[in-house]
Formats: sequence, structure tokens, C-alpha cells
Amino acid sequence: MGEVSVGIIMGSQSDWPTMREAASILDELGIAHEARIVSAHRTPDRLWDYGRAAADRGLKAIIAGAGGAAHLPGMMASKTRVPVIGVPVQTRALSGVDSLYSIVQMPRGFPVATMAIGAAGAANAGLMAAQILAVSDPALAERLDAWRAALSASIPEEPRDE
Amino acid sequence: MGEVSVGIIMGSQSDWPTMREAASILDELGIAHEARIVSAHRTPDRLWDYGRAAADRGLKAIIAGAGGAAHLPGMMASKTRVPVIGVPVQTRALSGVDSLYSIVQMPRGFPVATMAIGAAGAANAGLMAAQILAVSDPALAERLDAWRAALSASIPEEPRDE
Amino acid sequence: MGEVSVGIIMGSQSDWPTMREAASILDELGIAHEARIVSAHRTPDRLWDYGRAAADRGLKAIIAGAGGAAHLPGMMASKTRVPVIGVPVQTRALSGVDSLYSIVQMPRGFPVATMAIGAAGAANAGLMAAQILAVSDPALAERLDAWRAALSASIPEEPRDE
Amino acid sequence: MGEVSVGIIMGSQSDWPTMREAASILDELGIAHEARIVSAHRTPDRLWDYGRAAADRGLKAIIAGAGGAAHLPGMMASKTRVPVIGVPVQTRALSGVDSLYSIVQMPRGFPVATMAIGAAGAANAGLMAAQILAVSDPALAERLDAWRAALSASIPEEPRDE
Amino acid sequence: MGEVSVGIIMGSQSDWPTMREAASILDELGIAHEARIVSAHRTPDRLWDYGRAAADRGLKAIIAGAGGAAHLPGMMASKTRVPVIGVPVQTRALSGVDSLYSIVQMPRGFPVATMAIGAAGAANAGLMAAQILAVSDPALAERLDAWRAALSASIPEEPRDE
Amino acid sequence: MGEVSVGIIMGSQSDWPTMREAASILDELGIAHEARIVSAHRTPDRLWDYGRAAADRGLKAIIAGAGGAAHLPGMMASKTRVPVIGVPVQTRALSGVDSLYSIVQMPRGFPVATMAIGAAGAANAGLMAAQILAVSDPALAERLDAWRAALSASIPEEPRDE
Amino acid sequence: MGEVSVGIIMGSQSDWPTMREAASILDELGIAHEARIVSAHRTPDRLWDYGRAAADRGLKAIIAGAGGAAHLPGMMASKTRVPVIGVPVQTRALSGVDSLYSIVQMPRGFPVATMAIGAAGAANAGLMAAQILAVSDPALAERLDAWRAALSASIPEEPRDE
Amino acid sequence: MGEVSVGIIMGSQSDWPTMREAASILDELGIAHEARIVSAHRTPDRLWDYGRAAADRGLKAIIAGAGGAAHLPGMMASKTRVPVIGVPVQTRALSGVDSLYSIVQMPRGFPVATMAIGAAGAANAGLMAAQILAVSDPALAERLDAWRAALSASIPEEPRDE
Repeated sequence: MGEVSVGIIMGSQSDWPTMREAASILDELGIAHEARIVSAHRTPDRLWDYGRAAADRGLKAIIAGAGGAAHLPGMMASKTRVPVIGVPVQTRALSGVDSLYSIVQMPRGFPVATMAIGAAGAANAGLMAAQILAVSDPALAERLDAWRAALSASIPEEPRDE
Repeated sequence: MGEVSVGIIMGSQSDWPTMREAASILDELGIAHEARIVSAHRTPDRLWDYGRAAADRGLKAIIAGAGGAAHLPGMMASKTRVPVIGVPVQTRALSGVDSLYSIVQMPRGFPVATMAIGAAGAANAGLMAAQILAVSDPALAERLDAWRAALSASIPEEPRDE
Repeated sequence: MGEVSVGIIMGSQSDWPTMREAASILDELGIAHEARIVSAHRTPDRLWDYGRAAADRGLKAIIAGAGGAAHLPGMMASKTRVPVIGVPVQTRALSGVDSLYSIVQMPRGFPVATMAIGAAGAANAGLMAAQILAVSDPALAERLDAWRAALSASIPEEPRDE
Repeated sequence: MGEVSVGIIMGSQSDWPTMREAASILDELGIAHEARIVSAHRTPDRLWDYGRAAADRGLKAIIAGAGGAAHLPGMMASKTRVPVIGVPVQTRALSGVDSLYSIVQMPRGFPVATMAIGAAGAANAGLMAAQILAVSDPALAERLDAWRAALSASIPEEPRDE
Repeated sequence: MGEVSVGIIMGSQSDWPTMREAASILDELGIAHEARIVSAHRTPDRLWDYGRAAADRGLKAIIAGAGGAAHLPGMMASKTRVPVIGVPVQTRALSGVDSLYSIVQMPRGFPVATMAIGAAGAANAGLMAAQILAVSDPALAERLDAWRAALSASIPEEPRDE
Repeated sequence: MGEVSVGIIMGSQSDWPTMREAASILDELGIAHEARIVSAHRTPDRLWDYGRAAADRGLKAIIAGAGGAAHLPGMMASKTRVPVIGVPVQTRALSGVDSLYSIVQMPRGFPVATMAIGAAGAANAGLMAAQILAVSDPALAERLDAWRAALSASIPEEPRDE
Repeated sequence: MGEVSVGIIMGSQSDWPTMREAASILDELGIAHEARIVSAHRTPDRLWDYGRAAADRGLKAIIAGAGGAAHLPGMMASKTRVPVIGVPVQTRALSGVDSLYSIVQMPRGFPVATMAIGAAGAANAGLMAAQILAVSDPALAERLDAWRAALSASIPEEPRDE
Repeated sequence: MGEVSVGIIMGSQSDWPTMREAASILDELGIAHEARIVSAHRTPDRLWDYGRAAADRGLKAIIAGAGGAAHLPGMMASKTRVPVIGVPVQTRALSGVDSLYSIVQMPRGFPVATMAIGAAGAANAGLMAAQILAVSDPALAERLDAWRAALSASIPEEPRDE
């Protein structure tokens, strides 16, 4: 797939079952990506380094998943102009409302492109990354159009009893 | 500024005081844009037409603001692969939590890059659009870096009594 | 049962376990109905076509179930004057509060008759459709009165240990 | 306008500034209606009598607005098969979320067609009543189509600064 | 135990596993009571009759449990001056927040003494009924004091691993 | 009015504009009462003393209002078997939802009869106290019935424009 | 470990599975501690005594866990100047939002250092106690720095499939 | 007052009207402090530097106020073992619930001692800092005890009409 153009980062190993939905979508669309654990609180220097290098490394989108206080996406957004797509991971007590508010309510200056809570949001993060890349990649735009058309075509007319 | 690369759409005139924050940011960054009222419910055909033509017209990002049921951003996302950035407009009874949930909780396949509720979210939508364009526009990337550096430099060391 | 007078539509197959409660009620009351998958985002043209034809086909009520961003009921309400009854399907992270807000908080001009979250709401959607039809169908009105009387008569005087 | 076909009821005088939005819409559409104060708690017998007589009096829809515990719409729904459209009135402490939950979360058997919180919901209650009547009143259906077309036509293309 | 002084009523059989906690407490304290299913919506006339007769029958407190729209406690409070103690039953989608708001947010004139959501609330409803009776029953007051003292005495000093 | 039978306590002077609604109702019904500031946190010993003496002083109900963490009603309930009626005072940031949860969610053993948030809840606390006293005071029961009848009689048939 | 410097208290045995996370952390860091059941409502005198003696006994921090109305941390904070660290225990119906609000929304004068809901919050309470002690204990400060460094070092670079 | 032992930091000038309540309390108690604007997103390097130097500079507590995504307290907690006390600043759309969740829901390893939303929380942050310092400063402990005693003594017995 060539050089990595999308980074998937997450606060901890426990976010991976959610976040690999993003990786799957990028695989389906043939977009080179990497997955890294970058904890805003436990490895802040890793976050710093990743953010500082992102644009120069050629990253075109960063997908960041986190739960609870969920500072990772917003802190990454403060360190790089590469678009950051945030995925609120579902949490035990507050169901991910905490994650959602922490990710989406960013102050003026540092947007995070926030997705739905949980696995659907992670898959959509992969698609949003693809849509961003497709702005300047006509071949990818075509693959993306085909993916969307296939999704639409897969919907049956009537529900079936199971 | 040349041809329009960002469309700002909103559900009604009453969203404009919020959404013009997005226009201001795009003006500051020298990004050509247009502002349109496109109501998902009152002018669905206008939404259809706008969405169908978006990619061919050269739009690279669509900023969509709406309040309450707030179907505009999500419906636009279903009609075009151009990245849609959603702004939840604050509402009277539910303070924009209704807008936020309606915009962010999109199903697998159709992401909306959701921003914070209200004016800060609208400004950030302008910045996110700029970040997306900057992926393939080095000159804009430089202007964006300068904008961000100026913002950081503007923060005083100590609070002042007023 | 003669020609179809109620359409049951839903965003995806996964909504059917909830929505068939509506179908059951319509069966009990002898009201001809159809069930269709119509996704606001994945099959928007299907939504358009269904809405445009609804009144001419003789539909007298449309029951629309959806979860999360849940745009289906509101978008259908924008395409037809046939009364749309919305059912918020329960969701994993937000328990259907997202579905409820997206369905009920419609702007002036396009009401959706919103029911309770989940299966009870789907059953009630069937009853509300029946009540609407009964306005101009005295025979159905009688069946409905009998159904309601039977429900009331089924309530025991005292709770029983199990 | 002939005999009354829609009853607008509300829990107290303080609900009228909200509920008269429903009356205005019914006036615009030429639908004969009445407005009554019927408190579920303070005048329960009035509620009983109104509900028992509704169908025989020829009422085809009842619009019921209430705030807080908001038992009026649901109790009316238990007394008559005439469709009840509920309007959650905005409240001081809980902004109408209390009203909304009390109205929408009805148990199996007794649906209330719930509208948005506040004045938009009241206006939409008038429209929903009209849509229900239009099922069996082709002339009203035409007026309603015209009303909807006029609403759509009133939307300007671009927002204007004020 | 002599004549019934506390009535336990509930909206449906499914509330009994919660509400029998109230019955257990009344049993422990030797307070004669009855349990009845009285549905505000399905058996409104039963509610009417129960409420009208309550004071004359010598009832000194009514414990009313309900879930969702949960109109039973408030409607009972409108029909009798006998103190009504409300128990919000936990619900599937909204966890009983709907029940709580519907029960507690009563308008001026008709208080419901609202307890915690679920089984602890039901047990406490039994205790509150006992406290109300104890105001004019010194023997019960003594039993209640003993019950409270025993509860306090049962608390170990240190937690134990299990 | 004779000896004090109802104590109204509150956490601070700022609760009085809310809590005097309870005093007004007790005045209307001719029930002797006192009002005291008893802060659970700032004057815990005062709380202790008030609770310990309550039953012996002949108090038959205690109305306790508090906002925020709102520990006063629950702590008073732990110190006396006299029924405690809790009033959640509206708060700035959380509108009294914090007060409501802190007051109503009491553990098994120590019920607080919780009222609606704010002034309506305070008035209802006065009424609930009266209903409790009326259990053993026929003359008060009659005054209460008259008060309720007058409230019902005061409701006009139709709303009036203002 | 020498004399006890941290007290862990909780409202009931059922809080221990959560609260022993605090004990584990204190064990790891070599901080002498005790665990006690102190119920604000069932054993208020125990709370009083524990609070009054805390400073003189040499306690330097008190960790208090509670669920629901959760008055323990705040009442302890009113009885002693020793820093109280509050842990909101997750609850069945309200997931610990009730516990959180009751603990965190303390009035001016009596702060509770509130942690996250549930087990992570309990572990963090142990760490916060350690951080407070480390202010005047350089040896502990070193152990704490080492603990934090080890936590950071334990984070792998990449997520692994399981 | 000698060398600075408490740092008050905040995300922006607009937090100062809230946060100066903390400064006032520290002034009252004679605790040397400084106030700085440190934005997690706009001046992340300033945050880094402040955190790295905190312990060596002799800071014994850091009070951090922020609103919305509110990453400042948590990020500071990841950079230093000095206890961080978090103050959720009230926000326009979400009233500070966003701030509260972002600050309190920290993951295992990095506690933030969270206070109430708004000005009362800021004042309490000052008191909590004082309580932490008092653990190893007997003279301050005495001043704090006196402050608390004065607060308790200031509460009148009865509310007064205004």
C-alpha cells in the first residue's frame, strides 16, 4: 500500500477491539495505515513526538480513540494541523457520554472531527479519513464511491424473520 | 479567492449567527466559500441537488449546521463523498444536546465530522475544513500554521482583573 | 385484508425485532400493512420514492422505526403529508435517547408522532395507526374499542408471586 | 368552520402561550377547534367527561399540552380512542425533559403521538391533527399540501446578515 | 393485624418483584396491608374507585409503584388526601429516570412522596408508611425505633473479603 | 395555632425564597410551624440536636430543603423517625438535578419523601405535611379537603389571551 | 508500615469490591492504612467519632466511597480538616451519576476531592492520598515517581490482537 | 507570604472570574500562590514546562480550572506528582457537565481531585489546597480550623425575609 497515510492511535490496548473497525475499513479501501498506543496521560511524550512529526511524515489524517476523560484526540489536535478524527470509546459507568463530551467540546482553534460512540464510530472514522484523502486522490475517490454504492445495494427490500 | 472550495449550509436563517463564525475563519485563511440555506425538511430537493453536485463542482468540504432534529449534516453525508463537517446549533429546551446526538450518532457508512455545540463549534468547522484542504495545499498549510502560532502567541501569562 | 393502508418502514434489518411488534398489532386488528427496509442514509432514493408515492398509493399512516441519528421518520415526514409515526429504537451506548431526540425534536412544519423507546413504542405505533384509521372507519373503531376493553379486562386484581 | 373536530386541552392557563401555536395552525388550515383547560390532577372529572364524550362528539384528534409530571395526554389517551397528540411544555428546572418523558414513555396499549418540546411542538401538533383529518378529507389534504409548499417556497437561498 | 391501613398498588404484575419489598417491610413491622394492581391507563375506573374510597376505608397511606410514564402515583394523589408514596420502577431504556421524573415532578397541589428508583425505594416506601402511621401510634413508633436500631447494630466495623 | 407540629429546615438563607412556599401553605391550613437554618455541613451538631429532639418535641413532620450535594434531608432522616419531606432546591449549573438525586436516592432504611424541584415542590411539601397530620386530625382533614376543592374550583374552563 | 496514615471508609460491605482498589494501591506504595465501614445514615455516630478523632490520630487523608445519595464523603468533610477523597460507587439504576453529583457538588467550605466513578476512581483515590502524603515525605515521593514511571513504561507501542 | 506553594492555572482569561475565588480563599488563609494562564491546547509547551518544574519549585498543590473539553487538569496530573485539584468551569451549552466529566473521569494512574462546578468549586479548591498543606503545617491547620469555625458560627438560627 505504500507509505503510511493514516495513523490510528488509541489510549490503551482495551480500545483496540473498537478501533480495529477503523483499520478494517482502511484495509478494504487500500489505504496504508499504522496502529499505535499513545496514552495522553501515561505516555505524554510519545503523544508530543507523534504529533510533532505527523505532517512531515506525510500523515494525512489521524484517527484517535479514547474513553472516559479521553484527552488523546484533543491533545493530538493541539500538536498538529493534520486532521484528527476522534472516536469516543464506550465506557462502563457513563456509556461513553463522558468520552463524547471530552472529545467533541473542543475550544475554538483545535477541532476534533468527532464520530459516534463505539464501533460504528470507529468504522466511520476510517471512512472519514478516506473521504479526506479522496479530496486529492481521484482513484481513491472512485473506490470510495464503489464502496458506498455496494453498501447501498446490500440493503434488502423487506425485513426477514430470523 | 478563486473557485468555491467550501460550502457552508444551514437549516434556517436563525442558524446564521452561529454559522458565520465558520465563514469568518475561512475568510481569515483566504479560502473561497459560499453560504446557503438548505433545509433537510423544508427543501429536501435542494439538499439532494446540492449533494449530488458537490464533488463535481469541486467542493472539498461541506460545513453543515443545524439544530434540534438536525438531519441536514447526516443527510448531506449520505448524498456525497465530500467530507461533511457538522455543527450542532444550540437549542432552547435541550441546549443543543438534541442537535449533537442527531449529528454525531451516524450509522456505519456515513460519517459526519462533528464539532462542539454552538459558535466555537462553527469556528472550528472552518478550521477543520482548512485542515482538510491543507492536506493537499502546502501554501494553505503554511497559513494555517501561522494562524495557529498566532493564536498560541496571543495567550497572556497571567489573568488580569477586569 | 385488502389494499395496504399502513406502511412499516425501518432503517435496517436489526430494527425488525422491535418493529414487528407494530406488525403484530396491525394483524390483530385486521389492518393490511407492508414492511420495508428504507434507510435514510444508505437508500435515500428509496426513501424519496416511498414518500412521494405514499398518499397516491392510499397509505393512511406510515410507521417508521430507527435508532441512533434516526433520520428516517423525520425525512419521511418531509416527503409526504401521510401521518408518520416514529419509533425510537433502543441503542447500545445511549439507550435510545439519541433516537428519541432525533425523532421527536422536529422543526415547525414536519411533525413526527413519536412513540416510546423500544418494543412498547412499536406496539403503540400500530395502535396509533389504527386510531388514525378508525377516525374514518367505524368498523375498525369498534374492533379497536373491543381490543382496548379486552386489555383492561385482562388485568388481575392482585399481584401473584411467581 | 362547522362542528368542532379538534380539541386543544392543556393543564393550566400557563400552557396557553405555548398551545395557542396549535390553534393558530388550525385556524390557518380552516379546521374548527376548541380550547379547554383540563387539569389531570385538579379537575380529573373534567378529564374523564371530556374523554368519554370525545368520539361521540365527533372529535377526530385531541391535542394535549402539559408540563412537568404532565399526566394529561396519557390519561386522556386511556379514556378515548380518538388520537391524542401530546405537547411537552418547557419547564423551569428540567427544561421539559420531564414533560417529554412523562408524555412519550406510555405503556403498551395507550399511545400518545408526542411532539417536540415547546412552541414548535405545539405548532406541529396542529399540523399532525390536520394530517390525521386529511386522511379522510381530500379538500383539507389539498390545503395542507399548499401550506407545505408555501413553507418550502419561503426559504431563501442564502442567509442574510441582520 | 386488624384492618388494612396501607394499600400497595402498582401498574402491572411486572412491578411486583420490586413492590413486594414494601410488603415485606410492612410485614416486619406488623402493619396490615393489601396489594392491588391498579393501572392508571388500563383500569382508570379502578383507580378512581380506589382513590375515592381510600380515606373512608381507613387507609392511612398508599404506596404506588409504576414505571415509564408512571402516572399511577400522581393520579391517585389527585383523588385522595391520603398520603401517596411513589416508587419509580426501573425501566429498560431509561433506567427509571422516566419513572422518577413522572412521579416526582407533580404540580402544586398534589404531592407524591417520592422514593428512590427500584427495590430500595420500595422498601423505603414501606418504612415511610410506617413513619407516617407512627405519628399517631406510639406502639408502632417503638417497633420502628427498634427496627432502626437493629439495622444500625447490624453494620460490621470492617469490610470482609468474600 | 398551638404547639409547633412541623419544622421547616433549610441549608442556608438562600433556600428561604423557595422554602417559604411551604410555610405559606402551612399558614393557609392553620398548622403551627417553625423555620430554622440547619446546615448539614456547616452546623452538623445543630442537625444532630434537632433530629434527636424532634419526636420528643412533638414534631410530626420535618420539611427539609437543600441544593447541590443536599445532604440535609437524608441526614435528618437518619436521626429521627419523624417523617422527613425533602425539597430539592434549584441550582445554577445542574438545575437541581444534583439536589434531586442526592435527596431521593436514599439507601434502604432511611426514606426521604421527595418533592418536585423548586417552589412547587416546597408548596407541596407543606401539603404533604398536612396530609400526614390529617391522618390523625379529622378537623385538619376537612380543611385540607376544602383547600383541595377550592383549588379545583378555581380552574377556568377555557384559556384566556393575556 | 508503622502508624495508620490513611483511612478508607465506605458506606457498606457492598462497596468493598470497589474500594479495595484503593487499599491495593496503598499496599503497593507502602502506606499504612485501615478500612472501616462507616454508614452516614445507619451509623451516624460512628461517622461523628471517626471524623472528630481523625486529625489527632494522625490521619493524613481519608478515602470515602459511597453510592446513591452518597452522603458519607461530604459529611466526613464537614467533621474534619483532614483531606477527604471521595469515590462515587457505581449504582444500578443511575450508574453512579447520582453518587457523583452527591459527592462532587459540595457547598463552599467543605471540599471533597472527587474521583472517577467505580474501580478506577478507587485506585486513583489511593494515588491521590499518596500524592498528598508525598508533599511532606520525600521517600514516598520517590516511590510514587517510580510507580508512575513503571506505569508509563508498561505501555506497548502497538495494540495486539487477542 | 514567602515562596509560592500553590499554583492556580486556568485555560483562558475567561476562567478568571471563577478561579479568583480560589485565590481569595488562599489570601484569607495566608497561603502564597500564583495565577497563570496555561492552555492545554493553545500553549501545550507551557503546560509541559509548568508540570515538569512544579515539584522542584516547591509547589505543594496545583489548582486547575477549565471548561468544555477541559483537558488542562488531567494533562497537568500526567506531568507531575504534585496533587492537582480540578475545577469544572460552567459552560454555555452543557452547563459544565462537559467540564465535570472531562476532569473527573480520569483513568487509573492520574487522579484529579475534582471540585463542584463553578465558583463554589473554585473556592473549595482553595480550601482543599489548604487542607493538603495543613497536613504538614500545624500553624496553617490552626488557621484553617479557625476559618471553619467562623463559617459555622456565621449561620443564623432562622431565615429572614428580605
